[in-house]
Amino acid sequence: MYSYQAPLRDIQFSAFELLGYAEHYASLPGVESIDAEFAEAVMDQTARFAEDVLAPLNAPGDLQGVRWQDGQVFTPDGFKEAYQQYAEGGWVGFSCQPEYGGQGLPKSLNTMIGEMRGAANVAWSMGASLSAGAIDTLMAYGTEEQKQTYLTRLITGDWTATMCLTESHSGTDLGLLRTRAEPNADGSYAITGSKIFISYGEHDMTDNIVHIVLARLPDAPKGTKGISLFIVPKFNVNADGSLGERNGVTCGSIEKKMGLHGSPTCVMNFEGATGYLLGPENRGLNCMFTFMNAMRLGTAAQGVLHSQVALQKSQQYARERLQMRSLSGVKAPESEADPIIVHPDIRRMLLTQKVVAEGGRMFVHYMAQQLDLSEHAADEAQREQSNKLLSFLTPIGKAFLTEMGLEAASLGIQCFGGHGYIHETGVEQNLRDARISTLYEGTTGVQALDLLGRKVLGSGGELLGLFTSQVLEFCKAERSEQFSGQAKQLEQLVKDWLQLTQGIGEKAMQDADEVGAASVDYLMYSGYVIFAYLWLRAAEVAAEAIESKGDADGFYQAKIDTASFFYQRMLPRAMAHKAAAGAGAESLMAIAEEGFCF
Amino acid sequence: MYSYQAPLRDIQFSAFELLGYAEHYASLPGVESIDAEFAEAVMDQTARFAEDVLAPLNAPGDLQGVRWQDGQVFTPDGFKEAYQQYAEGGWVGFSCQPEYGGQGLPKSLNTMIGEMRGAANVAWSMGASLSAGAIDTLMAYGTEEQKQTYLTRLITGDWTATMCLTESHSGTDLGLLRTRAEPNADGSYAITGSKIFISYGEHDMTDNIVHIVLARLPDAPKGTKGISLFIVPKFNVNADGSLGERNGVTCGSIEKKMGLHGSPTCVMNFEGATGYLLGPENRGLNCMFTFMNAMRLGTAAQGVLHSQVALQKSQQYARERLQMRSLSGVKAPESEADPIIVHPDIRRMLLTQKVVAEGGRMFVHYMAQQLDLSEHAADEAQREQSNKLLSFLTPIGKAFLTEMGLEAASLGIQCFGGHGYIHETGVEQNLRDARISTLYEGTTGVQALDLLGRKVLGSGGELLGLFTSQVLEFCKAERSEQFSGQAKQLEQLVKDWLQLTQGIGEKAMQDADEVGAASVDYLMYSGYVIFAYLWLRAAEVAAEAIESKGDADGFYQAKIDTASFFYQRMLPRAMAHKAAAGAGAESLMAIAEEGFCF
Repeated sequence: MYSYQAPLRDIQFSAFELLGYAEHYASLPGVESIDAEFAEAVMDQTARFAEDVLAPLNAPGDLQGVRWQDGQVFTPDGFKEAYQQYAEGGWVGFSCQPEYGGQGLPKSLNTMIGEMRGAANVAWSMGASLSAGAIDTLMAYGTEEQKQTYLTRLITGDWTATMCLTESHSGTDLGLLRTRAEPNADGSYAITGSKIFISYGEHDMTDNIVHIVLARLPDAPKGTKGISLFIVPKFNVNADGSLGERNGVTCGSIEKKMGLHGSPTCVMNFEGATGYLLGPENRGLNCMFTFMNAMRLGTAAQGVLHSQVALQKSQQYARERLQMRSLSGVKAPESEADPIIVHPDIRRMLLTQKVVAEGGRMFVHYMAQQLDLSEHAADEAQREQSNKLLSFLTPIGKAFLTEMGLEAASLGIQCFGGHGYIHETGVEQNLRDARISTLYEGTTGVQALDLLGRKVLGSGGELLGLFTSQVLEFCKAERSEQFSGQAKQLEQLVKDWLQLTQGIGEKAMQDADEVGAASVDYLMYSGYVIFAYLWLRAAEVAAEAIESKGDADGFYQAKIDTASFFYQRMLPRAMAHKAAAGAGAESLMAIAEEGFCF
Repeated sequence: MYSYQAPLRDIQFSAFELLGYAEHYASLPGVESIDAEFAEAVMDQTARFAEDVLAPLNAPGDLQGVRWQDGQVFTPDGFKEAYQQYAEGGWVGFSCQPEYGGQGLPKSLNTMIGEMRGAANVAWSMGASLSAGAIDTLMAYGTEEQKQTYLTRLITGDWTATMCLTESHSGTDLGLLRTRAEPNADGSYAITGSKIFISYGEHDMTDNIVHIVLARLPDAPKGTKGISLFIVPKFNVNADGSLGERNGVTCGSIEKKMGLHGSPTCVMNFEGATGYLLGPENRGLNCMFTFMNAMRLGTAAQGVLHSQVALQKSQQYARERLQMRSLSGVKAPESEADPIIVHPDIRRMLLTQKVVAEGGRMFVHYMAQQLDLSEHAADEAQREQSNKLLSFLTPIGKAFLTEMGLEAASLGIQCFGGHGYIHETGVEQNLRDARISTLYEGTTGVQALDLLGRKVLGSGGELLGLFTSQVLEFCKAERSEQFSGQAKQLEQLVKDWLQLTQGIGEKAMQDADEVGAASVDYLMYSGYVIFAYLWLRAAEVAAEAIESKGDADGFYQAKIDTASFFYQRMLPRAMAHKAAAGAGAESLMAIAEEGFCF
């Protein structure tokens, strides 16, 4: 109904005007030459691909879905051709090392690409991005031979990869997994077990698929400390790089899901499949966790793109749909009714979507900048500090942005009224596709425990302090009268954050359940404070821009207005989360297990 | 995966222990003989039908969906037979007048039936309940001949009915509708136009379908004051009651929707179809609005049933699924992990669902009691007061409960983790089916304007005062120490409610957009206060029951625990809504129409 338009203007604002990506790239060894112009060219090219190639396949792909037949999986019409175009364009290896065929560009640029790709077609995008985790893992832990055999083919996009973690009884709790790896005489392993929820575990887009499989060696310790990684190709690879025999791994079925109908979610059966140890024995989880932040950053960006899609469609509809008259007087006398954008409550919904889409974009770009720094900064202290900051921000970004993305996507339906429930308008698909985002890559509850338990309390408050001191410093800066009220609000929120943390920490020393009881509300509170910080920064940058160069299209004034809306109408929710997070575990733990439902 | 179990124990608690339905029925002329035993028998019979007949058709109906072929519509396997069983059981005419074949039972009992029927299979239930509006309208405005011809056949369930309101350009704004009614020589009318979103507008469950159609007479005034009602049967009816020729109304297509796949949503084309005027000319909307409260009560109950389904499935899964150890120490040493119900955040989600399901049930039963009184109370003053109270409560009940139902349904997915995204577990279908509930029968935004604009400010505060005085009186009653803190909280909330209303009212005199700007947050605030009132009442009733008769199964203690949870962890959200509702229109109206999206 409405076609996707990449939000290039806002991406540029967030990355370059707000976060100074030009200076950022200039400071990074190896990519100093990236300037705004180069980035713009990359973004333009990606935008064209997303708008012209991917977006038109989105709704048809949802209706057609994937098909499983005798172990083979067929993706929707056009998916394969789009993937080939993507691989040929060099997008797969965009931020991979040049020595193995990548372009060596910073991950922050890749993040911007990922947003547009996913907004245009998130089911297809799952297939295009799923190699990233395997590429990182192979790069860090693969032998030179493994890199030459597998990594180079993944970077070109000739093959794709999967990460095979989950088993039916073992999801969040990977320590329970049972897939076995028995040593073969030739140094390889025979992998046996069944994995579920493997995205693009089988498909028709490439000749080969490289599975990175979590399994246990025969004498491995129980739990998470006995898990090793194995490379299991769909087709064995001959010494000359050509494909050999089919390996013992097959797709047993695909899931019927709420959304992402164009993305196959496979049950993968390993029946003595030949695998090759990747990285040290029994250290598989540690190897994988190295890349957790980068992987979760990609999921955080899904919150942004689902909000962006909802916002775009909603505002177009709200400007066209004529229904009722404005309560404050006729606004479109030439029509039989006013466009619904005149109604305050429609505006409330649009502004909420805008806060999430654009605020989430700033948040993601901010994290991506720290990711670049943690990997590439010249100074080791800087790398370390950015890594700490990123570790702290990642669970908040992943969980808060995907939760907010669900709200924005649901409001997208609400803005369309009954028409939003119909497939044709695209907004219900957007919610169905979005609904997985708070579940995979660690549920909201898992992120919240990671934040409060491991990152905040586990570091004795160090990581929290690293971020809050930056915000408090920002609050103390001189500023115009226009923003001083918001800065005071923000300062108070940060002080309350520190106090809330201390209170929970003290209770947690008596009872560890206090951490879990407070965690999700604590995380949501944290997210609202970070939004308050970023939106105030955005408003100030916008005000400066208006003064220095005017505001021909009203872009900057809209930033200032949206910040006001956020502070007045959404930020009060932080109070509710603070109260809930501070309420203690008693009201959760008191009720008997049998008492929930009669 | 988990089969539906009707929550008979809690229905009994809410209706009979909390709201005194036995005394209530004893006070109503004509139904004095209904006692708890009779009601229990009706509930048991309904529960068996819902659990054994309807629930097994629910997931298969979603997968199979409805099929449209050359104007004919085929419902999923089993739907037709279940409908016949339902009609034969006398459920269709349960609360209809005995003189036309109904059982004459109060609508509050019917509401309880509706909850179970919908929880078991909401797509099927749409078909079973859609005649209610038409029956009420025919009863009130039909001629004796129309009643004999149509009403009696609807009450037996031989035929079904629809309400044909919406056109593609005319949804909320019915004043825009264009369907025409031209007088025929014989006193009938030729109806021409196209209607959309007509649930069960065409189906294979009965021989005939009676459409109640909104259309305009040739000389009708513009807008809502020029709409009349017409009876348009699918097959014309001969004088002897037998079916005559096919009328000029056909189903042009059915919609592809997010959920309710078993319920056909039809485009109905009227091409000079023969129609019969129902009620006075040009007064069609007024006739329909008479029954708005009853219709919206049914939708409010959908919030309850979607929450109930989510709660049931979630708590069963949470007690079975083993994943991770409790942070406060191993709870199930015999297993390789603890059931996830030990984790505080899982409990937070379950308790939230329980608050909505059981709190919503009390809310719906409370409204249904007022509906009974407004229709049947012996005393006219009582009828009038109950009607006022119901008018005030209806928009809150419809919008607040369906919004909360979406949250509970979404948490249902969250409790299942990645498995919640898969069709098999049923929780994703529950959210898809639920998503329509905040849209139809008036969106949340429409309900909020009705509440704040028409009911609260429009009555000069009278309707609000009618309810709040009852709550304040309750707060002042003597009570045990145990609940005095909650009573004080509730009293303060009510005072803030009155103050908030006054503030908005004053601003609205300067600018009518202030009403729309405050409305949804105002409604949500109202909903939380009503929940606070009902949950405190429930806790007190439970405490008395424990004292008087003990608590063998822990049912009553769970009520008290859930009320505590609500007050401590959910009620703080009311603060956020109050702040947003009080923030004024400026932050919504400032941004330019072009400024929402770049």
